[in-house]
Amino acid sequence: MYTALAGGVGAARFLSGLVRVVPAPAVTVVVNTADDDIFHGLHVSPDLDTITYTLGGAEHPEQGWGLQGETFAMIDALARYGRPTWFRLGDKDMATHLYRSERLAEGATLSTITGEIAEAWGVSPRLIPMSDDPIATRITVIRPDGTTEELPMQQWFVRERAEPPVTSVRFAGAEAAAPAPGVIEALEAADTILVCPSNPVISIGPILAVPGVRDALVRRRDRVVGVSPIIAGRPVKGPADRLMAGLGLDVSCVGVARAYAEFCGTLVIDAGDAHRCTEVEAVGVRAVVADTLMTDAGVAAALARHTLDAVA
Amino acid sequence: MYTALAGGVGAARFLSGLVRVVPAPAVTVVVNTADDDIFHGLHVSPDLDTITYTLGGAEHPEQGWGLQGETFAMIDALARYGRPTWFRLGDKDMATHLYRSERLAEGATLSTITGEIAEAWGVSPRLIPMSDDPIATRITVIRPDGTTEELPMQQWFVRERAEPPVTSVRFAGAEAAAPAPGVIEALEAADTILVCPSNPVISIGPILAVPGVRDALVRRRDRVVGVSPIIAGRPVKGPADRLMAGLGLDVSCVGVARAYAEFCGTLVIDAGDAHRCTEVEAVGVRAVVADTLMTDAGVAAALARHTLDAVA
Repeated sequence: MYTALAGGVGAARFLSGLVRVVPAPAVTVVVNTADDDIFHGLHVSPDLDTITYTLGGAEHPEQGWGLQGETFAMIDALARYGRPTWFRLGDKDMATHLYRSERLAEGATLSTITGEIAEAWGVSPRLIPMSDDPIATRITVIRPDGTTEELPMQQWFVRERAEPPVTSVRFAGAEAAAPAPGVIEALEAADTILVCPSNPVISIGPILAVPGVRDALVRRRDRVVGVSPIIAGRPVKGPADRLMAGLGLDVSCVGVARAYAEFCGTLVIDAGDAHRCTEVEAVGVRAVVADTLMTDAGVAAALARHTLDAVA
Repeated sequence: MYTALAGGVGAARFLSGLVRVVPAPAVTVVVNTADDDIFHGLHVSPDLDTITYTLGGAEHPEQGWGLQGETFAMIDALARYGRPTWFRLGDKDMATHLYRSERLAEGATLSTITGEIAEAWGVSPRLIPMSDDPIATRITVIRPDGTTEELPMQQWFVRERAEPPVTSVRFAGAEAAAPAPGVIEALEAADTILVCPSNPVISIGPILAVPGVRDALVRRRDRVVGVSPIIAGRPVKGPADRLMAGLGLDVSCVGVARAYAEFCGTLVIDAGDAHRCTEVEAVGVRAVVADTLMTDAGVAAALARHTLDAVA
């Protein structure tokens, strides 16, 4: 039994490697939902969809979100009505949001619906949203005139291209939320808990903020292994560097180790960061070196193998 | 001032002729909404959309619904989730339903939203839904085994291709509904009231069922002129023949005259039906003959001109 904590594209690639080296049905994935938002009345779950589409073999090969061969007729047509179109919902992708929204309106939980969508894509690992309750990442930025403003995550990341400097991050709703059914059980039952190479602040951070999750991880610390999403001081993709720097974290595998030290006994770092092993171990986290840049499925599978071996 | 009662494609073509012969802002169109339904959680208004798209010059040239150059990626993708896809919502068309649904959820009325959508398409006539309240055409059909079943209109018309024989029709919600703001006023203020060549049973019928509308028409009977949608015993498009026959109405311009006699002083019938003028006039409706088959915009404009002249 393997339980993974996951955000978006980095996690999706890692998980597609993982299911090549262990039986897919033995894998449970707890997915960040604090990036979820309502667009045009529909509930969009970016990380759940990225992981589902990737494990279903239908992800866009480059852009890190959305489907292969996607079209954008609907979102472009919304411009006629003065609606914002910066969040590029594809036509095929829309079907997922329509289905999810209609099922939510019918009273189904997000975790039930997530299972239905995963099944529709032939995804064998069990996907669970971190919570069925709404939790929303809010990012406080500083404007050129020195004032601060709190933005929904997608507005900062997509609309404003992650450009405004970040001063703080919170996960609205987290205190009142409960873990989705099966989350704590999956952490308790797992032989190995994997923290995927995802943004530590806004992908892994919200999962940790769900009451009970961090404590469950702390209790299993020896069985928790993370993969640093930072290679040579930079994220492979996404805004982790701007977020970590804004929150005063060192943008490096050492900064990741420090953020995870309480609940993560082992951290896989990139071969290019091998010279920082001593620094990682100085914060109390065992460092294991591997090739973490997942340029193809073979590398992802090898990384998954190395990650499991690190706590074997 | 001209006020028209309108259903879908026949009305849309007639109205596009009308606005070539009178100033478009002088035209108010009261549109059937009893074909409206919820698909995939979204409020779809087929007749409003057909008229808006046609007056906006964007209608599909042949099929009688939807937009030119439309694609269907979204609806096809919904099949993966086991959702019914027989109601073919196009990707561009979806933007209209999303916008309408989101505005309704915000608390805007259908008539307000209809005005916004019409403006977005550059439509100059004023479009008003017959009511802001939900009214739904329900069609009772007889099955091969002799049992009867009541179906939502789109299910009978689109999903079952209008094949099951009809025994009765009702407009659920009509008794409790109010005319939308401006409907009665537009009927009272009009120099001429036009009953477009639309299905008498399920396009004009629901408008008449809105409390106050039929009475307002009866009071203006001399200024009401209809156009028969039946030519030589057959509708140009759509299931009017099956509905009229099912309800025991004569499928002819005479049957239309009989159905409209109480509130409509004059009926324009096709030149091919000229031999039935005496029968039409025998039910108390003045008959005027014109070419009513709107094969192009010029014919539609000429028909509109003839229709107005009939009560000049």
